Amino acid sequence: MDVGRRIEAALDVAVAHAEAPGAPPLLAEAIRYAVFPGGHRIRPRLCLAVALACGDDDPAASDAAAAAIELLHCASLVHDDLPCFDDAPMRRQKPSVHAAFGVPLAVLTGDALIVAAFETLARGAARSPARLAALVGLVARAVGSPSGIVAGQAWESEPYVDLSEYQQAKTGALFAASTVAGAAAAGAPPLPWRLLGECLGEAYQVADDLRDVACRQEEIGKPAGRDATLGRPNAAALLGKGGALDRLRRLTEEAIEVIPPCPGQAEIRADIEAQTRLFLPASLRAFA
Amino acid sequence: MDVGRRIEAALDVAVAHAEAPGAPPLLAEAIRYAVFPGGHRIRPRLCLAVALACGDDDPAASDAAAAAIELLHCASLVHDDLPCFDDAPMRRQKPSVHAAFGVPLAVLTGDALIVAAFETLARGAARSPARLAALVGLVARAVGSPSGIVAGQAWESEPYVDLSEYQQAKTGALFAASTVAGAAAAGAPPLPWRLLGECLGEAYQVADDLRDVACRQEEIGKPAGRDATLGRPNAAALLGKGGALDRLRRLTEEAIEVIPPCPGQAEIRADIEAQTRLFLPASLRAFA
Repeated sequence: MDVGRRIEAALDVAVAHAEAPGAPPLLAEAIRYAVFPGGHRIRPRLCLAVALACGDDDPAASDAAAAAIELLHCASLVHDDLPCFDDAPMRRQKPSVHAAFGVPLAVLTGDALIVAAFETLARGAARSPARLAALVGLVARAVGSPSGIVAGQAWESEPYVDLSEYQQAKTGALFAASTVAGAAAAGAPPLPWRLLGECLGEAYQVADDLRDVACRQEEIGKPAGRDATLGRPNAAALLGKGGALDRLRRLTEEAIEVIPPCPGQAEIRADIEAQTRLFLPASLRAFA
Repeated sequence: MDVGRRIEAALDVAVAHAEAPGAPPLLAEAIRYAVFPGGHRIRPRLCLAVALACGDDDPAASDAAAAAIELLHCASLVHDDLPCFDDAPMRRQKPSVHAAFGVPLAVLTGDALIVAAFETLARGAARSPARLAALVGLVARAVGSPSGIVAGQAWESEPYVDLSEYQQAKTGALFAASTVAGAAAAGAPPLPWRLLGECLGEAYQVADDLRDVACRQEEIGKPAGRDATLGRPNAAALLGKGGALDRLRRLTEEAIEVIPPCPGQAEIRADIEAQTRLFLPASLRAFA
């Protein structure tokens, strides 16, 4: 099965568990709505690319790691879109979860997705119980406090914000988790893979800033120009479009260089080159 | 170390990890505020009582299970108190988390506590990796969809509510998780312990309804009469105070009867008799 199909299948299993008989119907509907249809599934693709590069000897564990990371990403989108944060009306070309289901169900959908992520890890690591503790620890660290995506979002409530801590936590942490969890799921030492995830997280942040500044809503599926509206730092505003594109190119090259020695080095190199091209929408890809 | 001290120490370790250097200071403060000082810690006490009754051969795993369950309970209190749900200004004799820190940090504090719970399980089960998958699965089931506390809260957004599904999910699920996780942490088969947790969860729900109807705010640390205000079902309103006290007594007797055979049967029996007395505040205990 190709990587994209593996990811959708693993997500479908996780969501099907959450919507099993007995579930409140609207919550079940909102959970599926938050996960499908997805975006580019960049993080779970990265996770599986690393697992495959490390031998992928327990595909159920790798699929679970990839799905857990995407579920957590979806949870963060649902909560970040809430009126008390970004107040975003649109996401992935459709109304955001709170716009479609109301704020209470959006809060609960995010909560349920976080729980589903860990449940997915536990279910997927049945054949390799020894890998489960590492997976839960690595994934939890990328999401919670002090330095996961929840902490990243919380920096927006602080009077003084350390910009690099903020961006590393808000975006970098889950990219780093994607690479280390991919390695851990395949039984490889996870830490050598951390730097690759960090580089790609930073590259993605620059690309996201470019999209926000240089694209129209129809192309990116959510309102553009939000960083300026919300007074948030933006690399493209700071460096200019050309400067930001340069920075994105340099970070992508750096990512390729820091891939650790592994059985599938040629494949993951090609894969990451292909994936990073998807960071930018078509209208900007010509310049990158 | 006595059970109460073990619980506070395990919670302190979990919270200390979340507030480690690099954490956004207000988020770190809000996480500690949400966990300390606690209430009666009924669920983690129940978890440790079962672990001890089953031999408690890996106290780090039992402590982690107890702490994880209390962190998830705290997370549910923080989110349930939000303006979009109960809009509760007070909790445990002090302003609720959103009243003290604002809604954005309250949402994130709940999220961070959910993550911290699973991280705590992973850290605590280091000596018994084979038990971790069972623990994560049992605890996640009690919290997420279809039948955990998040689903219980989501029933409030449904046009038609199945009352027993609602109460079983909203209160019963985490009590049931407390007993089964206590057994799993001690390496005992968890399922025989489920019925005890379910009985105690139902008893707790009746006691909570009695508190809401028959106590003043000063005694219970949160506004009284909320069920009537919010139009929620309440056993004491339905059966009368005497009828609800009778039901509470019957459920407590039933709980004692369903304790499975185990090495520490006499101790857990006494323990549960003592704990269920704490379900009611002093002003109602004389009648129970």
